[in-house]
Amino acid sequence: MPTKPSKTLDTFPNPHPQNDYEIDIDCPEFTALCPMTGQPDFATIHINYKPGPRCVELKSLKLYIWSFRDEGHFHEDVTNRILNDLVDALDPNEMTITGDFGVRGGIKTVVTARHKK
Amino acid sequence: MPTKPSKTLDTFPNPHPQNDYEIDIDCPEFTALCPMTGQPDFATIHINYKPGPRCVELKSLKLYIWSFRDEGHFHEDVTNRILNDLVDALDPNEMTITGDFGVRGGIKTVVTARHKK
Amino acid sequence: MPTKPSKTLDTFPNPHPQNDYEIDIDCPEFTALCPMTGQPDFATIHINYKPGPRCVELKSLKLYIWSFRDEGHFHEDVTNRILNDLVDALDPNEMTITGDFGVRGGIKTVVTARHKK
Amino acid sequence: MPTKPSKTLDTFPNPHPQNDYEIDIDCPEFTALCPMTGQPDFATIHINYKPGPRCVELKSLKLYIWSFRDEGHFHEDVTNRILNDLVDALDPNEMTITGDFGVRGGIKTVVTARHKK
Amino acid sequence: MPTKPSKTLDTFPNPHPQNDYEIDIDCPEFTALCPMTGQPDFATIHINYKPGPRCVELKSLKLYIWSFRDEGHFHEDVTNRILNDLVDALDPNEMTITGDFGVRGGIKTVVTARHKK
Amino acid sequence: MPTKPSKTLDTFPNPHPQNDYEIDIDCPEFTALCPMTGQPDFATIHINYKPGPRCVELKSLKLYIWSFRDEGHFHEDVTNRILNDLVDALDPNEMTITGDFGVRGGIKTVVTARHKK
Amino acid sequence: MPTKPSKTLDTFPNPHPQNDYEIDIDCPEFTALCPMTGQPDFATIHINYKPGPRCVELKSLKLYIWSFRDEGHFHEDVTNRILNDLVDALDPNEMTITGDFGVRGGIKTVVTARHKK
Amino acid sequence: MPTKPSKTLDTFPNPHPQNDYEIDIDCPEFTALCPMTGQPDFATIHINYKPGPRCVELKSLKLYIWSFRDEGHFHEDVTNRILNDLVDALDPNEMTITGDFGVRGGIKTVVTARHKK
Amino acid sequence: MPTKPSKTLDTFPNPHPQNDYEIDIDCPEFTALCPMTGQPDFATIHINYKPGPRCVELKSLKLYIWSFRDEGHFHEDVTNRILNDLVDALDPNEMTITGDFGVRGGIKTVVTARHKK
Amino acid sequence: MPTKPSKTLDTFPNPHPQNDYEIDIDCPEFTALCPMTGQPDFATIHINYKPGPRCVELKSLKLYIWSFRDEGHFHEDVTNRILNDLVDALDPNEMTITGDFGVRGGIKTVVTARHKK
Repeated sequence: MPTKPSKTLDTFPNPHPQNDYEIDIDCPEFTALCPMTGQPDFATIHINYKPGPRCVELKSLKLYIWSFRDEGHFHEDVTNRILNDLVDALDPNEMTITGDFGVRGGIKTVVTARHKK
Repeated sequence: MPTKPSKTLDTFPNPHPQNDYEIDIDCPEFTALCPMTGQPDFATIHINYKPGPRCVELKSLKLYIWSFRDEGHFHEDVTNRILNDLVDALDPNEMTITGDFGVRGGIKTVVTARHKK
Repeated sequence: MPTKPSKTLDTFPNPHPQNDYEIDIDCPEFTALCPMTGQPDFATIHINYKPGPRCVELKSLKLYIWSFRDEGHFHEDVTNRILNDLVDALDPNEMTITGDFGVRGGIKTVVTARHKK
Repeated sequence: MPTKPSKTLDTFPNPHPQNDYEIDIDCPEFTALCPMTGQPDFATIHINYKPGPRCVELKSLKLYIWSFRDEGHFHEDVTNRILNDLVDALDPNEMTITGDFGVRGGIKTVVTARHKK
Repeated sequence: MPTKPSKTLDTFPNPHPQNDYEIDIDCPEFTALCPMTGQPDFATIHINYKPGPRCVELKSLKLYIWSFRDEGHFHEDVTNRILNDLVDALDPNEMTITGDFGVRGGIKTVVTARHKK
Repeated sequence: MPTKPSKTLDTFPNPHPQNDYEIDIDCPEFTALCPMTGQPDFATIHINYKPGPRCVELKSLKLYIWSFRDEGHFHEDVTNRILNDLVDALDPNEMTITGDFGVRGGIKTVVTARHKK
Repeated sequence: MPTKPSKTLDTFPNPHPQNDYEIDIDCPEFTALCPMTGQPDFATIHINYKPGPRCVELKSLKLYIWSFRDEGHFHEDVTNRILNDLVDALDPNEMTITGDFGVRGGIKTVVTARHKK
Repeated sequence: MPTKPSKTLDTFPNPHPQNDYEIDIDCPEFTALCPMTGQPDFATIHINYKPGPRCVELKSLKLYIWSFRDEGHFHEDVTNRILNDLVDALDPNEMTITGDFGVRGGIKTVVTARHKK
Repeated sequence: MPTKPSKTLDTFPNPHPQNDYEIDIDCPEFTALCPMTGQPDFATIHINYKPGPRCVELKSLKLYIWSFRDEGHFHEDVTNRILNDLVDALDPNEMTITGDFGVRGGIKTVVTARHKK
Repeated sequence: MPTKPSKTLDTFPNPHPQNDYEIDIDCPEFTALCPMTGQPDFATIHINYKPGPRCVELKSLKLYIWSFRDEGHFHEDVTNRILNDLVDALDPNEMTITGDFGVRGGIKTVVTARHKK
């Protein structure tokens, strides 16, 4: 598997589809650019989901998170976009994405987006 | 955009109105004056909202928070006033404002005001 | 206003009676005497309430908390007594009083009393 | 009152039976013996209850906790036994006993038993 | 009882089947191998259950946790497998297993699986 | 021994005068009155000493700490006074007294006084 | 004493000049203006000193801290200016001033200035 | 090796006598009786030493700590006694014993005894 | 001043060269690329210095930290390079740079480089 | 480079031998076997060193830490052995190895070994 930033999210079949369980993933190393100023933004992206038919493969998730590094994104928008991409790839029963962004102008912002089948 | 204290709250359209999500904003740098003694009060203002048609723009929020610096306000009143101003500007689905004020007379006060459409 | 211990709780009209909000007050400097041994007891008193027609004025609350300093009170009793006094003075929609007392005999006690209209 | 370990739990009448309140008590100094190996076990016992007709007197509770010092008890059993003894003595509206035991074999155990009238 | 890794889970009868209680067990010393790379993975396994007819014996649980040391397992799979093994052995009223795994590729994963009778 | 506030500090002979050791004592339940306003002040008093010929007896220390309850004292003064009283009673090799006082006017004060033979 | 911002630092004679002691004061409610942008800055000012002939009176210190509210100051400069003002007023044996400023541009600054006689 | 409380401290030869190293051991499960009242005391015993010719074997240390369970000891005395016993058994280059005892009468005591060859 | 990544460090004259003081700066938003794999690395850079003739201007420091975003650097090397660049620009009396890097391969690395005139 | 446990420690030349700096590495995923019982032990190994001619390469360090997984080692011995291996490979100016081991028999052990050229 190449080690380059990529929007492709690899998945594998849910190994216990008959069980009720959830997966929490913390990605403290998200960075993108501010679309207004071009300056770097930093965030921790938290992912929580109850898997449906498929689970996300962690190495491809790392490359996906990396893929935003040179792109411009608003906080509210990018958090929902990550939710939408993961929902498309995994069709989870429930999913919550939290983008916890660094302080800007003395103000700290956290965006939390939810999906429920 | 001028950099002066201002009561104007700029907004932008909710980029994902079809998603269920919420935004948390911490403003640790709120200060106003006590209307009884004229002495400065300090607080952290926490904002949590589920956006309706519009989101608050962060730079204008910073200037709005700044606009209280030379005004006299009681704790219970100013927390509700911030709620009312933000509800008027954003028409959110839900909003909670928490004013976490510094110790006075050995006593600490936190005021939490909620709006639900 | 005199600065003496006093059981009088001054109040002011709820400035936003149409809003749904709550007020948290921490009073870490409560002391009374043990009615059995005469020895001093110490506690933090936490007050949480959803105001009805009136709010408590903080300076009179400080003097009220001070008024227990030379009185003998059991933990369970004094926490409920503070609840009853504040409910009588404020007629709140909801109120919770927590008395968090110091260790005695290797044992720590917390008493939490609730009122709902 | 003698200061010896004792299974007797003294009580006093609930001073505010018309109020809705609860009492939290932490006893960090519980020790008993393992019934299999005879070696000492240590735990913190947390007691939470909504009093019915009677409250537990703290000095007798201290002697009651002490009374297990030379007895052999399994974790699951002794936590439930303390619940049953306190329910018998107090007839509470609700009660929860938590036994938080020290690490054994690299494993930490907490037992939480509940009673509801 | 031999002290070797073993998949056998010894149990004993619930000593208070008429009580409503739960048992929390932390096993911070879980290790297995990554089935893709053969490299060691580490986790804390948290077990929470409301016992049905039987409770798990702690020494056999320690040997069971040890038994994964030389086996290859994916995170999602092994957490659910531990749940299934414990449900089979104990027939609990409710059980939750949490596998809290170490950081890999700058990403941290926690898997939480639940069973309810 | 009577249980009343008292300025008398009972002592006992250092049981290991040939050893190099120190004793730390935390008294979180100190209160006195402000000599300017008459309002109560609260502090934690920390005592650290390397004993000389005598050690302080804890029950008399408790009554000594209690003896300030109805007296007026400035922070800087009372911390040094406690140091001087304990040095007079114990003749320690070294002693440090720290008075950690509650917030007043948005300002927190800690006074640390040291004695060395 | 008037309650207005003031550069005057009132002092009182060191009550125990023969003792070796130090005083720590935390002022979490400092604010000034950025001299470049006019925007408000916030800081906690920590004061540690070993008193010489005089100690600082706390109410005047509060008014002194308040006096910077409408003035423009750089971080490095204002911390040293507070040191110099307090050294002039108190002639302490040692003094350390720490200015702990809020995040600006994703960067946090703390300035620590020391004086020794 | 029998599993009974015992004052015997087993040792083994320092495996790296040419290295400069130290060993920290925490024993959170120490209990003894108060020699005045007969009531149980609890403490954590911390051991830090730079080994000389011999190191302490951990199982015998556990049994040694256990051996105080039914004995009466003052805090200052027992901490120094543990130091002296360990110094006799191990002849360490340096050793520090800290006895961190539970709250009594609202007062917490820590005793720290040191040995240096 | 343009807002682009830049290796230029702007400085201003030390406003209190006669004072003994130090400046601490935390930059939690450093990222570079691994020179072996091309994957992003993340770190917090802590700067502590006692200024000599000049201080670093914060906005240019932000752009300097940003300038590493697309460059490949080893942890040990880049921390020392930042030290050398800042020493060249500021000629400080003392300086310490700490690079606190994220976990890689289950291992966390912190590099601390010091300069003294 | 193969990904197998290995005692080989790869190194690279100190990139800034003229600088005074140190490197801290945390390896929370160390496990070995108890040589007496064969049961697994777990530890965090902390490495701090001031590099001499060479630095340790992190991937080989990970494989070195892994190489103890199936070996029997006493706590005191293995910590010193890791020190000796790293000193042999790197010839550092100073080095400290800390082995922070899990609780056994209610007792926690930390071993800290130091080398200085």
